[in-house]
Amino acid sequence: MIPESLAKLIAEFRKLPAVGLKTATRYAYAVLEMSDSDAEEFVSAITEAKEKIKICPLCGDYTDGEVCERCMTADKSVICVVGEPKDIQAIEKIGTYNGLYHALHGSLDFRKGIGADNIRIKELMSRLDGVKEVILATNPDIGGEMTANYIAGLIKPTGIKVTRLAHGIPMGSEIEYADEMTLGKALSDRKEM
Amino acid sequence: MIPESLAKLIAEFRKLPAVGLKTATRYAYAVLEMSDSDAEEFVSAITEAKEKIKICPLCGDYTDGEVCERCMTADKSVICVVGEPKDIQAIEKIGTYNGLYHALHGSLDFRKGIGADNIRIKELMSRLDGVKEVILATNPDIGGEMTANYIAGLIKPTGIKVTRLAHGIPMGSEIEYADEMTLGKALSDRKEM
Repeated sequence: MIPESLAKLIAEFRKLPAVGLKTATRYAYAVLEMSDSDAEEFVSAITEAKEKIKICPLCGDYTDGEVCERCMTADKSVICVVGEPKDIQAIEKIGTYNGLYHALHGSLDFRKGIGADNIRIKELMSRLDGVKEVILATNPDIGGEMTANYIAGLIKPTGIKVTRLAHGIPMGSEIEYADEMTLGKALSDRKEM
Repeated sequence: MIPESLAKLIAEFRKLPAVGLKTATRYAYAVLEMSDSDAEEFVSAITEAKEKIKICPLCGDYTDGEVCERCMTADKSVICVVGEPKDIQAIEKIGTYNGLYHALHGSLDFRKGIGADNIRIKELMSRLDGVKEVILATNPDIGGEMTANYIAGLIKPTGIKVTRLAHGIPMGSEIEYADEMTLGKALSDRKEM
């Protein structure tokens, strides 16, 4: 006997990552208990984020300007290549990396038909002017390893140094969830490919 | 260097119950990764739920009609009194209770100035015609116990049987999170006050 629009709200919350029925129900009731103005703020934060936040045409991170600030101010001799924009935030938290980033928005997966043209590899290749090192920080899973090897194969012939985050990150996990110390160690121990 | 509108979205997700910075950030990125139409559906589910869902003037549960369906079809000889509408769903899950409910929308808290007039006690007293038993299912914490004792004191002089959910629910916890078996036991073992 749950009202239909409440059931729909619960279903929408279940689309968020790792949210099951119990958590989604809890969030939905929390929304019903909010004041109308709090609920409007919540809704407008979502709408505004979707409207204002774009993909930086250079690095692929989220930005609310045109080219993102980091692409303009960072040390342009090194590029750190990640799978998704959220991985950039994880590496930023270490606080010691000052170079450029490049988010691929995906990883190679031939079973799903995701090849080199479906992720931002061409865009990466066009940014290598003046770059002395490319750090490959894709996830240490099958897709991430394959992507790193593929990119290393493209870049090494150009003479640019190609490194990979050091082991220290457990295989099969995701960069987004590594703690700062593990991730910092992986960055300082990076190995040439 | 997180875009302002992304930071705001993260802050809004942190207002949901038990959501910290890491979880809120994860939800915000998930929203950015959604298609525009999925994000619109999410937003309209919130807006629609806030617009359509009202409080049933009889039992205080959420409903998208006028008087809720349960108030019209339930066994009217017994009322189960709970703190919040979400507690009704927890008891409904047992699957064996067929009576009316009454959500107080709060519990007595004299330090916070919440007295008998600030929760739906008057509304409960006006629903006792034909009722043979009032089951007090407020939370087993200080406020819930105080509220149950206060209501028992009002109703017992009328000769109506007043019961309280049996112990079995750990003290200091919340009814919303009890598993169906514990809650079912507490319902069948309810004790007269």
